[in-house]
Amino acid sequence: MQSRGDLAVVLLSGGMDSATVLAIAREEGFSVCSLAFDYGQRHRFELELAAHQARAQGALRHMVLQVDLRAIGGSALTDDLAVPKEAPGEGVPVTYVPARNAVFLSLGLAWAEVLGARAIFVGANQVDYSGYPDCRGEFLRAFEAMANLATRAGTEGRPFQVRAPLLELGKADIIRRGLALRVDYGKTLTCYDPGPGGLACGQCPACRLRLRGFAEAGVPDPAPYAAR
Amino acid sequence: MQSRGDLAVVLLSGGMDSATVLAIAREEGFSVCSLAFDYGQRHRFELELAAHQARAQGALRHMVLQVDLRAIGGSALTDDLAVPKEAPGEGVPVTYVPARNAVFLSLGLAWAEVLGARAIFVGANQVDYSGYPDCRGEFLRAFEAMANLATRAGTEGRPFQVRAPLLELGKADIIRRGLALRVDYGKTLTCYDPGPGGLACGQCPACRLRLRGFAEAGVPDPAPYAAR
Repeated sequence: MQSRGDLAVVLLSGGMDSATVLAIAREEGFSVCSLAFDYGQRHRFELELAAHQARAQGALRHMVLQVDLRAIGGSALTDDLAVPKEAPGEGVPVTYVPARNAVFLSLGLAWAEVLGARAIFVGANQVDYSGYPDCRGEFLRAFEAMANLATRAGTEGRPFQVRAPLLELGKADIIRRGLALRVDYGKTLTCYDPGPGGLACGQCPACRLRLRGFAEAGVPDPAPYAAR
Repeated sequence: MQSRGDLAVVLLSGGMDSATVLAIAREEGFSVCSLAFDYGQRHRFELELAAHQARAQGALRHMVLQVDLRAIGGSALTDDLAVPKEAPGEGVPVTYVPARNAVFLSLGLAWAEVLGARAIFVGANQVDYSGYPDCRGEFLRAFEAMANLATRAGTEGRPFQVRAPLLELGKADIIRRGLALRVDYGKTLTCYDPGPGGLACGQCPACRLRLRGFAEAGVPDPAPYAAR
């Protein structure tokens, strides 16, 4: 258990995983500064929901940083490629954004160093989506080692911890954990390609995993979906 | 020696070190895509000089990415703190930008993956400026290890190399190397706090190191300086 008031940076996307991670960091006693990225993603709804979660869960500060990953390209999430409408397949998905978590965690690290935060929380999960290389524990451990060589704080004996409390959990377990912490999943968006008003499609790989998770947890998903 | 045409991403700042690194990458036979960052630095001259070096040295592409490190704060190079006007002291300088090389290399890594480049060149140097934790070989090796776990290419057996050919060179050696490769140092800017028109101040720690390097190399510095 963390001593009350210790500061953490939480990477917040507007999705259900990072909303759950924020709740876990708060429950552990951290004061939280949350960080979202405007990186040229296909839609803005998730940024609105990230800001909502930050407010609703009592983040001290919430910052939206612009990083133009669209200029770099290479992903269905930032380019004009079709987002798949089927269940996840083998290998690395087309929705993989090159080195995204390395970029986001590096910016989280920079902010953590300025704030004097010692922990950086991220919603990475390697159970449902092992296709993303940068959601694996092995990557996160390598990032943490790099972070403690990259920074003044790390090299002066105030090391950073990269925390991924959902890493080994399935979606249903994440949902149970979040509901116990009163996360409002009605105000999260998981869909890769939402329709007007931010309605989730219910068809893309991310929606399918989410819906299966709620079904397994035995609770209805409170988020708004397009008619199915 | 690299086979002609292999692609590298070179991080280019407009300073003399990264201009030299670009020349080394070209001499090794790489085709180069150069990457500069508009990160809220105090002045724009270095971005103009980076674009000039990219053109003059035959980069295939040159991209300027916006990353708002000013929003994160914590450095005399991005905040409204005074830049020191004396020789470098002990410890980490106030011009340290938290986690800057981790952020820049992560974005270079993302672009390298999209381009299919296997090498990322950076002007890091640990001789003159050991005060910057993210200019040390130890950091660069940890970054490379992280990079190869963070990416599809790295995990699928097409690993990235982080190349820092100036790492162990003193300033005079860097200058001799660059002059042999016909780098135009008149079109580079090292100064932390240039005056109108991009004239170097000649007084800040970066100018002092540069001028001492040229003196040791026995050649005049062709860059424009404010009257001293």
